Amino acid sequence: MTEPAALLTAAIGGDRRALSRLITVLENTDDRLPTILADLLTAGRGAHLVGVTGPPGGGKSTLIETLTAEWRSAGRAVGVLAVDPSSPLTGGAILGDRIRMMSHSADTDVFIRSMASRGVLGGLAATTWLAAAALDAAGFDPIVIETVGAGQSEVEVAALADTTVVVEVPERGDEVQAIKAGLLEVADLVVVNKGDRPGADRAARQLRALLSPAGGRIRRAAPPVLVTSALERTGITELVVAVDRHRAVADQPERVLKRAEGRILRLVADEARARARANPEWATEAQAVAASETDPLSAARRLLGLPS
Amino acid sequence: MTEPAALLTAAIGGDRRALSRLITVLENTDDRLPTILADLLTAGRGAHLVGVTGPPGGGKSTLIETLTAEWRSAGRAVGVLAVDPSSPLTGGAILGDRIRMMSHSADTDVFIRSMASRGVLGGLAATTWLAAAALDAAGFDPIVIETVGAGQSEVEVAALADTTVVVEVPERGDEVQAIKAGLLEVADLVVVNKGDRPGADRAARQLRALLSPAGGRIRRAAPPVLVTSALERTGITELVVAVDRHRAVADQPERVLKRAEGRILRLVADEARARARANPEWATEAQAVAASETDPLSAARRLLGLPS
Repeated sequence: MTEPAALLTAAIGGDRRALSRLITVLENTDDRLPTILADLLTAGRGAHLVGVTGPPGGGKSTLIETLTAEWRSAGRAVGVLAVDPSSPLTGGAILGDRIRMMSHSADTDVFIRSMASRGVLGGLAATTWLAAAALDAAGFDPIVIETVGAGQSEVEVAALADTTVVVEVPERGDEVQAIKAGLLEVADLVVVNKGDRPGADRAARQLRALLSPAGGRIRRAAPPVLVTSALERTGITELVVAVDRHRAVADQPERVLKRAEGRILRLVADEARARARANPEWATEAQAVAASETDPLSAARRLLGLPS
Repeated sequence: MTEPAALLTAAIGGDRRALSRLITVLENTDDRLPTILADLLTAGRGAHLVGVTGPPGGGKSTLIETLTAEWRSAGRAVGVLAVDPSSPLTGGAILGDRIRMMSHSADTDVFIRSMASRGVLGGLAATTWLAAAALDAAGFDPIVIETVGAGQSEVEVAALADTTVVVEVPERGDEVQAIKAGLLEVADLVVVNKGDRPGADRAARQLRALLSPAGGRIRRAAPPVLVTSALERTGITELVVAVDRHRAVADQPERVLKRAEGRILRLVADEARARARANPEWATEAQAVAASETDPLSAARRLLGLPS
């Protein structure tokens, strides 16, 4: 097996197969990790990380395909990490057809990869972070992280990005589907996709009202709400402009420290949860808590290796 | 200073001042904690933990006051832990008046306490969990945990309960305000409060549609949606019945293990985040990440004491 460091060097040099194998190594990471991490960091080029999240069925994958085409036509190499298990971009029954249909399927400057939470020590957030670092080192920019906004850990992964886009769909005409998973709390941009459907403009208006400080009680500036149709290719250029423009906002000094703190804390929680679940005592502790033989706080502390 | 163990014994014996001081000790906990924890656990009587959460301004405190009156008239001793900094039940400018107005203010079988995240090692979830254990040991049942659904950690605290009630308010007539913070994801019961206002029934219908498996794509059974008016005292008896009835659902064996796992993982994440922030290197690490001198994953691992 090739050494991780050699894979990294090859990946930086443009070898896509080495990049793919490097990510596999990072996914199956263990305590050998740190050496490569330092090298990965040095090799990073500061790519724009763009999180795309939202409920399943919102057309995220089609939207990402369309965005990728826009970025490619501007000469940018685009990386996509799909943490969404339902994403047709990677895996699943429809994979074959969709990938073949994609105009970028033979383009070596588009790199699409499905992420699985297989790391021994790292959770989903850590694994995805490492894969994004590898894509950054290999020269991809932007790097899209696609997650489905169904559970807390997926939302946390999307929130690691510089710019987090929440994709909504105007289902049932007048119902806003964003209810789940604190999605709007992490949104820098909100997209009402499938804008060709009836109710899209109404849904956008509702979202704008909800997100206004008076309506939704969100304590920061309300994120812009855009309407797109990946099908009819409307609103896409506006979205690319908005994403690119947000980068400047994200790079304001007062935001940079806050984002750094948020990233550290999300990765701390992710690593701690992953370590707890990987602990050989996990099942025993969970059963003991369920049987009221111990309490969850003591169990949590023991699983973290704290004095209990 | 009285020893924690002595405070616990006195609290179990019915000494409310000792209970209050015990909770203060638990809030300022350090590595002496474990001894008391074991005793606390043994002393627990299995009280019903009821989380009440939702956006600010939803009338949670008034609703809890009304619920408390119902439970008291059934002869139950009621504990209330308010993690909501805006709660008029505890703290804040209106505290004095409200508390004096409350019919239970002189009732020693109602114990209201404001929680602060002051623990050295423990986060908000851990501190609240310990305080609930103290109330349980002192014979309170049910124990209400009131949090404001504004941030992830508050939602996680409410989700530690056996039964989590999300309180909505039909603001602006037809807009559903539940958008934030993954609130509905943790809801066992949803309450549209201020049912005297126009739009309450419509908001309830909207929420039921959103929460139906077809509408909201939530993967478990849809939580009941109730309409209450704390002001007009309507729907309160129904809510008490629904909360009490949910306890039986929560105690189903397949739910007990799942809840145990969820509690452990929430407390693991909470403890890990609190430890990271309490680490003397926290500010240095955050600044180094902000300056791109290190990456957030390495920083997270160092702050957790993992090899980096």
